Amino acid sequence: MALPETDYGLPFNITRASHVELLVTDLERSLRFYTEVTGLTVTASDDTVAFLRGMEESCHHSLVLRVSSATPSCARIGFRVFTDDELERLAAHLEGQGLEPAWVERPHQGRTLHVSDPIGVPLEFCARMPVQPRLLTHFHSYRGGAGLRLDHFQLHVPDVRALCGFYTGLGFRISEYVTPDDDVLVAVFLQRKGNPHDIVLFEGPGPRFHHVAFVTPDVHRLSLACDVAGELGYGTQVERGPGRHGPGHALYVYMRDPDGHRVELFTTHYQTLDVDDVPVRWDARDPGFGMPWGLPAQRSWHVQASLFAGVEPSGSFAGSGPVALEDYLAGGP
Amino acid sequence: MALPETDYGLPFNITRASHVELLVTDLERSLRFYTEVTGLTVTASDDTVAFLRGMEESCHHSLVLRVSSATPSCARIGFRVFTDDELERLAAHLEGQGLEPAWVERPHQGRTLHVSDPIGVPLEFCARMPVQPRLLTHFHSYRGGAGLRLDHFQLHVPDVRALCGFYTGLGFRISEYVTPDDDVLVAVFLQRKGNPHDIVLFEGPGPRFHHVAFVTPDVHRLSLACDVAGELGYGTQVERGPGRHGPGHALYVYMRDPDGHRVELFTTHYQTLDVDDVPVRWDARDPGFGMPWGLPAQRSWHVQASLFAGVEPSGSFAGSGPVALEDYLAGGP
Amino acid sequence: MALPETDYGLPFNITRASHVELLVTDLERSLRFYTEVTGLTVTASDDTVAFLRGMEESCHHSLVLRVSSATPSCARIGFRVFTDDELERLAAHLEGQGLEPAWVERPHQGRTLHVSDPIGVPLEFCARMPVQPRLLTHFHSYRGGAGLRLDHFQLHVPDVRALCGFYTGLGFRISEYVTPDDDVLVAVFLQRKGNPHDIVLFEGPGPRFHHVAFVTPDVHRLSLACDVAGELGYGTQVERGPGRHGPGHALYVYMRDPDGHRVELFTTHYQTLDVDDVPVRWDARDPGFGMPWGLPAQRSWHVQASLFAGVEPSGSFAGSGPVALEDYLAGGP
Amino acid sequence: MALPETDYGLPFNITRASHVELLVTDLERSLRFYTEVTGLTVTASDDTVAFLRGMEESCHHSLVLRVSSATPSCARIGFRVFTDDELERLAAHLEGQGLEPAWVERPHQGRTLHVSDPIGVPLEFCARMPVQPRLLTHFHSYRGGAGLRLDHFQLHVPDVRALCGFYTGLGFRISEYVTPDDDVLVAVFLQRKGNPHDIVLFEGPGPRFHHVAFVTPDVHRLSLACDVAGELGYGTQVERGPGRHGPGHALYVYMRDPDGHRVELFTTHYQTLDVDDVPVRWDARDPGFGMPWGLPAQRSWHVQASLFAGVEPSGSFAGSGPVALEDYLAGGP
Repeated sequence: MALPETDYGLPFNITRASHVELLVTDLERSLRFYTEVTGLTVTASDDTVAFLRGMEESCHHSLVLRVSSATPSCARIGFRVFTDDELERLAAHLEGQGLEPAWVERPHQGRTLHVSDPIGVPLEFCARMPVQPRLLTHFHSYRGGAGLRLDHFQLHVPDVRALCGFYTGLGFRISEYVTPDDDVLVAVFLQRKGNPHDIVLFEGPGPRFHHVAFVTPDVHRLSLACDVAGELGYGTQVERGPGRHGPGHALYVYMRDPDGHRVELFTTHYQTLDVDDVPVRWDARDPGFGMPWGLPAQRSWHVQASLFAGVEPSGSFAGSGPVALEDYLAGGP
Repeated sequence: MALPETDYGLPFNITRASHVELLVTDLERSLRFYTEVTGLTVTASDDTVAFLRGMEESCHHSLVLRVSSATPSCARIGFRVFTDDELERLAAHLEGQGLEPAWVERPHQGRTLHVSDPIGVPLEFCARMPVQPRLLTHFHSYRGGAGLRLDHFQLHVPDVRALCGFYTGLGFRISEYVTPDDDVLVAVFLQRKGNPHDIVLFEGPGPRFHHVAFVTPDVHRLSLACDVAGELGYGTQVERGPGRHGPGHALYVYMRDPDGHRVELFTTHYQTLDVDDVPVRWDARDPGFGMPWGLPAQRSWHVQASLFAGVEPSGSFAGSGPVALEDYLAGGP
Repeated sequence: MALPETDYGLPFNITRASHVELLVTDLERSLRFYTEVTGLTVTASDDTVAFLRGMEESCHHSLVLRVSSATPSCARIGFRVFTDDELERLAAHLEGQGLEPAWVERPHQGRTLHVSDPIGVPLEFCARMPVQPRLLTHFHSYRGGAGLRLDHFQLHVPDVRALCGFYTGLGFRISEYVTPDDDVLVAVFLQRKGNPHDIVLFEGPGPRFHHVAFVTPDVHRLSLACDVAGELGYGTQVERGPGRHGPGHALYVYMRDPDGHRVELFTTHYQTLDVDDVPVRWDARDPGFGMPWGLPAQRSWHVQASLFAGVEPSGSFAGSGPVALEDYLAGGP
Repeated sequence: MALPETDYGLPFNITRASHVELLVTDLERSLRFYTEVTGLTVTASDDTVAFLRGMEESCHHSLVLRVSSATPSCARIGFRVFTDDELERLAAHLEGQGLEPAWVERPHQGRTLHVSDPIGVPLEFCARMPVQPRLLTHFHSYRGGAGLRLDHFQLHVPDVRALCGFYTGLGFRISEYVTPDDDVLVAVFLQRKGNPHDIVLFEGPGPRFHHVAFVTPDVHRLSLACDVAGELGYGTQVERGPGRHGPGHALYVYMRDPDGHRVELFTTHYQTLDVDDVPVRWDARDPGFGMPWGLPAQRSWHVQASLFAGVEPSGSFAGSGPVALEDYLAGGP
């Protein structure tokens, strides 16, 4: 199968998935969830917006929660580019692709570039944020899942192959992909930072924001996040897991935040830095793909996702993805 | 609510749940599961029977697997009495209750007493087994869940209150119980050894053998048991969990062995040794009872259980127990 | 080697090591250590005394901290007897041994018996305390080592064999013991509750209080206790470990509290409930006895211990115990 | 303090520390240690050489053990360059520095460049190795510490500042450094792959090879590595730890292999990919630098290191580093 090819000759270096802005209805309620259950820490906040980061992060924010009276949605996902000079070259590159990048002022960020990707995903790029102390050894302040750092985003998109080509054109490498046969891409895992993913594209009506994932130190913290969720009244929002992923191989748990945005906590991934590394193929029809053990994800996990603010999704599910829990149970013995 | 009362004046001391004998169809297949996934060790075996114990156990066996051409079933559950003298007194006590205890010869056990409890559960009591080395520090031999020791049994029985009275009459204490109102007992957790349970009775057609539980050292081993199960081809037999119990509070996972017998691995329980400790009441209608977080157990966990060999079950589900996953998903948003 | 024999025919049941009272110089300072590092919770406190318990304990207190202007010392160690009736019988038994038990009023305890053991260790026995909620599932309140429950005490005593006979005469069983040859007891591990120890006697000037031990859930919490200790300024008070015990086999860490009292956190022990179980012998000259891996304990661990308030120690070290770190390093390559 | 500056304009990309070749006296003995205790897996071996990799690595080898009748030493440390083209440009760059790079044939590697760095450290660079399956989910094959991947090397060098300049000239970034004042560098932590270190330089007679470090999944595996070491007869070779690092913040343990080569197992590091990230300064005189809690490293850890084969070390210890355990204990109360 021919996969979209990574462009290795670019004059800019997108280093990593960096931050996400979520629109929420009740800031205090959301903060309680993200600090006590996922274990992020607050860098700055006022009545309308809060900037959070993981316990090891030196960046100012990886999660921005902004109060909005609109339907809860995802405002934007952000990536880091290594230097401000490279940011300029990225802007030129995007213009060359017929897109419309724009320089904007954003609080607590250096020079910032906004652009919508070819299907309308609102992206943001910057090279700098005010540096914060890493709280990695502030063990006494660890709470719940002790989220260490933002790792990746996952989106629903109507045409995975097409959008994948846009991102490989920005230098992203495919670490793993899912296909039922030789022609269709059900999902691709794209990375820049040397572990399996910075952004994941899954087939489905979109663009929609499926989840943001934070690294948790180990299975003990993953389990503690669930236990604290249960204790604090979020027990039914533990939507999937704990379980073991096929692609990426991490232990995971998925929760829904008080507005229904989905967040994943997972244990850390393998390293993939070598030119030798070839994309891992998963057969979407292999039951073990979605479920090395235990039960598959319930349907809500497969079909529900946050909208991007102001972006109308299109497309539909092709039905070639993994089975939902409801169907699995109905077909069982 | 008036609960059956423990008799504290007995002339014998049943110390703990001790062992269980399961009838299996393929010994080699069963051994692979119990040694590699649950992590028990084999004390002795031949072509027709294997005696296994947990990694910390000094007893000869806590699990006996015996080949049988009959339907896989549970042959018998066993308890320890402290001394052979007390065993005699237990025999007299059981006769006084109109039961028919019998002295039998059992391999790798001291003097052994057989009796069927009032609803036909085949019980076995002994005071001695040939002492084996504890393998607790044989870390290099730990496999999968590293099952340390047998902890308890769970049964389905048609009348929980009635049978509970038999066991409290043998000195068992109720640690926790489940009831939807003031009169019905959905479940009781009965213990002798000072943690929440040696034997659990749940309302349902019975007597049937629901599961045997082994202690695993921590959440890491619980998770490893699942991962090894997936790797060795038992992934779909991970029936429930990992999750957190309401009653007993342990982290657990339930698996089905190759014959469908159910085994639980769980992290260790709290200590309950004081006369002060009063039974903990759980409301069967409280969703948090069966599920502090995540999803409830699928229906198979609620309704399927092994038969006791040669014992016809009776009774039915009263329907007052926790909701099954299938119903939970159908009723969800 | 003939060991002191357990009396199994006693008319009372001492169920477990229960609580300890430590005299401290600064209550606030001590509370910070015990709540944030070892992770106990406060049941009740005023300006002069605090009652703490482990996160799973339903008893009112397992640790009493009392302000005293005297040298920090241990006021008393406590055990549970199952019922108040048995407490009466214990009193008669102790009088029969020529000791002088006395009934006393103690806050937050039922009927309480005080007695000094044959070498002057101040003991306390009671059957009841006001029952508290178990905080086992209050995961959000877990701190540091998340101490679950008191497990055992360790003492220095001048004649291990002699005092061991007193405790086996109260029904304690020897689980493990240390000896350099067939006649001398360097240490005995005595238990009532069915795991390796409730009280440990080590040869040395005494009676002195060497440490109290609390169970921590797993190695993750053990490590977190150390990390929080370091963060909060107690880093140099981590005296020994983390490491693996020979006798008892647990993973452990020892810390000194702000007054120099020693506390151990360790992962849970094996179960020993059967009449079959025979005491495990350790050779004091075997280097692996004190140190399956890593480095031996520094000399302070071997020789320092808290006094019992008002009790003058006697005796000396016989020198047959394990090597101290200082000597090990001097003799190394 | 002015630190050597990273050259960001290089025409080649050294991606990571990759592999190390150790000369050993008994291959079978060494293999037992590295497979059972550190938990690496063997990709290929014959009577004289073995190629091992971590459980997640797709590269052919990260550790080469070669039998030699000479004194056990380190033959060479290896790095990956992203592409073969870049390897050519690196060769030109090294020649431009007056060094003498040479193209060599190495088994199981693509085009390979050898060079001695300015003080004689034998380096090796390549872009390709035959790709192997990642064994990350072969949980049933995990042993001991389950070493996942090689992370970094540490060297003793006589002039840290001087050699640091060579590596920053190859594009390495300083993540952390140790200094007693504004002019002397006691240690630098240099990285390419986005976590704290690929190569660490510590002041001392050199060049000598202090240790190679492998990532272990979590504290449970770290502890298991120690326990298996003790069980298999390597207990006294656990030289330092488990403990918590100051710089880098990881939990660690150091062991000596059967030839005395030192290997570290540690839990994973923080991510550092942003241009913002500034080097973290540690004061060598701060006791917390080397020891957030517990005891400092014994002297052997500070002064002993493997020679590089055929390279005579020079220089001496300046004495400005952290205190050794022997001195700490002598100076203690």
